[in-house]
Amino acid sequence: MSKIAAANPQSQPDSAEVTAALLVIADEILSGRTKDKNIGFIADHCTLIGIRLKEVRIVGDSEGAIVEALNDLRPKYTYVFTTGGIGPTHDDITADAIARAFGVSIDVDPRAVAMLLERYTEKDLTPARLRMARIPSGASLVANSVSKAPGFMIENVIVMAGVPQIMQAMTLEVTPRLRPGAKMLSETVRVDAPEGEIAGPLGECQAAFPQVAMGSYPFFENGSYGSNLVLRSTDAELLMRAKADLLHRLSHLIG
Amino acid sequence: MSKIAAANPQSQPDSAEVTAALLVIADEILSGRTKDKNIGFIADHCTLIGIRLKEVRIVGDSEGAIVEALNDLRPKYTYVFTTGGIGPTHDDITADAIARAFGVSIDVDPRAVAMLLERYTEKDLTPARLRMARIPSGASLVANSVSKAPGFMIENVIVMAGVPQIMQAMTLEVTPRLRPGAKMLSETVRVDAPEGEIAGPLGECQAAFPQVAMGSYPFFENGSYGSNLVLRSTDAELLMRAKADLLHRLSHLIG
Repeated sequence: MSKIAAANPQSQPDSAEVTAALLVIADEILSGRTKDKNIGFIADHCTLIGIRLKEVRIVGDSEGAIVEALNDLRPKYTYVFTTGGIGPTHDDITADAIARAFGVSIDVDPRAVAMLLERYTEKDLTPARLRMARIPSGASLVANSVSKAPGFMIENVIVMAGVPQIMQAMTLEVTPRLRPGAKMLSETVRVDAPEGEIAGPLGECQAAFPQVAMGSYPFFENGSYGSNLVLRSTDAELLMRAKADLLHRLSHLIG
Repeated sequence: MSKIAAANPQSQPDSAEVTAALLVIADEILSGRTKDKNIGFIADHCTLIGIRLKEVRIVGDSEGAIVEALNDLRPKYTYVFTTGGIGPTHDDITADAIARAFGVSIDVDPRAVAMLLERYTEKDLTPARLRMARIPSGASLVANSVSKAPGFMIENVIVMAGVPQIMQAMTLEVTPRLRPGAKMLSETVRVDAPEGEIAGPLGECQAAFPQVAMGSYPFFENGSYGSNLVLRSTDAELLMRAKADLLHRLSHLIG
């Protein structure tokens, strides 16, 4: 896919909805060795700033897999976040894969070297550490307040570290550059009854309020089943009307 | 994609490697409301039984998104696991999406009804609960020892619940039907030095042992940086030779 085909945040078909995908690059998550802690943070953060996270993919440390996933995702969503693979070791291949996906060159970037020199002396800036200053041409840097080696943003793709503390700092750093969307509001109704008993009334409420997204999340607690019913909309008044309607339909189940 | 194009476990190009993808179907993970607990379990279980988990995707409760992801994944890997969206409520659309992806019909399955009757009386088998007995034509059932409503397996796709306890029971239930692969062995070397200092020796070791996968996983603990270096191979002797080589190259850093 050519660079031209990439999504432009300003030319999304529905300018009210700002969307995102997350690409997690990590052999160690796929092997089970490490348990992911980044998906939940980015999901929460996107919801907070009104961006709809629509898809997550996890791929291994393979240039082919990264390029394919990235070029599949970046035309579909306003933004694509990536985590992982930007450290100094031979298996850190994300920056090179991103450059290949965009068809641009990559080299040691003097701005990134300056950031590394806030932490390392020139003598300690080994060839391995200089790998962390390799930035694809045309990218802007994303500062790293934790350990200095920066992430970067190229077109609509934001490339961040995999270490959770650093990823979180980079997410907060890049947020002012993102177009905020309409904030999704939600209301939760907890029902101490199994899904089979609330499915009918919930389905009728959904039919009456098709513009409010409704989901049912079953749980098992203290030996019995219950359900959290979640209603989501960007329209506060519509959301409250739908909730009132649902509570009325479930009045026989709610004490 | 037609049914014919789906992967056949017996016709994988490399019969020694058994691969898998996981498709998590869950609006609530993408919104951040629920934090995923299934990816780590399936990753661990695959590693245990010699299956390489190569890719994970998370999509929302949208038939189009499920069909697209499934038809993208199932020809690429020996198996595709899915979690979520097989309960009784209107937002549980996974079984219908799977039927559409395979181009087969779907209806209430008498075998699944018999399983539900182990838990519910005929009177309690509401239309909503009967939704959980809708199974695509040609699928075999995957028993659910926790709450009875079954999952199913159709060709190389295994469809499971999203509730962790139920998903875990279904994973164990279906495992004897899966072709086991060569078990991946791993050795970990912990180095209390930042990645920048071990990247050189590690890269040289990787070049000397190209058939052993080597990764570096940095951590930050008690105020200083360290790295876990993980070596992975199905060949125990090769793995031990590579580990000995790495320890030798890092002897100046390991006490």
